[in-house]
Amino acid sequence: MRELLLIGIGAGDPDHVTQQAVKAIRAFDVLFVVTKTKGTDELVELRRHVVDVHRDRAETYEAVELADPPRPWREAPDYPAAVARWREQRTELWEQAVATRLGEDQTGAFLVWGDPSLYESTLAVVDEIAARGRVAFTHRVIPGVSSVHALTARHRIPLNRVGRAVQIMPARLLAGGMPPGVDDVVVMLDARGTFASIDPDGLDIYWGAYLGTPDELLMHGPLADVAQDILAAREEAKARKGWMFDTYLLRRRP
Amino acid sequence: MRELLLIGIGAGDPDHVTQQAVKAIRAFDVLFVVTKTKGTDELVELRRHVVDVHRDRAETYEAVELADPPRPWREAPDYPAAVARWREQRTELWEQAVATRLGEDQTGAFLVWGDPSLYESTLAVVDEIAARGRVAFTHRVIPGVSSVHALTARHRIPLNRVGRAVQIMPARLLAGGMPPGVDDVVVMLDARGTFASIDPDGLDIYWGAYLGTPDELLMHGPLADVAQDILAAREEAKARKGWMFDTYLLRRRP
Repeated sequence: MRELLLIGIGAGDPDHVTQQAVKAIRAFDVLFVVTKTKGTDELVELRRHVVDVHRDRAETYEAVELADPPRPWREAPDYPAAVARWREQRTELWEQAVATRLGEDQTGAFLVWGDPSLYESTLAVVDEIAARGRVAFTHRVIPGVSSVHALTARHRIPLNRVGRAVQIMPARLLAGGMPPGVDDVVVMLDARGTFASIDPDGLDIYWGAYLGTPDELLMHGPLADVAQDILAAREEAKARKGWMFDTYLLRRRP
Repeated sequence: MRELLLIGIGAGDPDHVTQQAVKAIRAFDVLFVVTKTKGTDELVELRRHVVDVHRDRAETYEAVELADPPRPWREAPDYPAAVARWREQRTELWEQAVATRLGEDQTGAFLVWGDPSLYESTLAVVDEIAARGRVAFTHRVIPGVSSVHALTARHRIPLNRVGRAVQIMPARLLAGGMPPGVDDVVVMLDARGTFASIDPDGLDIYWGAYLGTPDELLMHGPLADVAQDILAAREEAKARKGWMFDTYLLRRRP
């Protein structure tokens, strides 16, 4: 039967790739490469580089590009329906590619930044294709070093405090400030610098961008003191590179 | 100067080791091996195995055993003071070992299960030694695949739901039930089967033990239906192996 591998390749540093991921990279027949409309060619190139490093030149493979349909604007009329249509378009595109480009006894792979379980849609799309039942396949998930752990490693800090909880959340949920009962929060997908709009009193921030790559940026300090510096560093880097991947930990001081 | 490496080696499967960890394993001169009083010889053996797999036989190294002082009982008189003494004993032991067993231009390593940032004390002890300032060293943290990501990968589930937060916490904090505002919770360090003592209504559980090893156990389902089966499987496996490492995700059904 067809097999799909969702391979977590770590958070930017090609050396984050695990032995298990290397074996999976050496084993696939077809690589599915999801491309967005703009700005992330460098991310596609980095993934190709990870494959090239670990795969023999002689082991040829087919690369199938899946051009992500443009996501609807948040201001679109009937946004939920537009998102549902967008998701279905994407699912159909992938389903078609699996059915027509992957032989019945072949293995296809998706390379996923960080870990495939964390704020990542590849697994959800694969589950949708499986639920539709029009093409038969099995799938496996290869865990990776997530950007959360890359962030704490580079700052050399623990993620949790002894006996305490940690929350990981999208930036939208931070708009109202720190969640109740939790003093350590990792924020993902913050395109708008939400950290600079909350009450900074008593909070430290540990911020990282392009973790594990030569462009890596690290900053930390009391949120009140460094929020504006981080905003400026984000803007400068984003203008220079055309894209920004960052994450941060907010930690309430004891 | 002396360097200490805290190497995350992933959650049980030797193939979780990253390229970065392999390079670090090949580079150290002295391996510090923390041993507990009972039941975890197998974990020490597994770590030695990870070193042996990735290091040439010819590259000899020194292994320094650090026997963890017995942790005080929770019922001990003046428990906080007893824990403080225990921590200081441990810090002194490690400090002494780094000062006397690691040459001034040598690299020492600690192998850490999962990721060094998550419910793991090695980094805290190293920070304490640094703060005391009696022995000079630098240190680096090599991130690893944490048991959280190993769990979700083996169950082939996302960790978060779209737009929602995830909380990671020790079992003690689960005693009162699910935390407010969060529908996805990963619980660590649950020696007492706390999942079976909370209101199971509307919750699913995804449980895993000895993740990534040949002894791996996976169970999932509505908490109300499977909690007792998981408790039984835990007890049986713990009796057979002498130790238990497990973790689980509690997920509120939509």
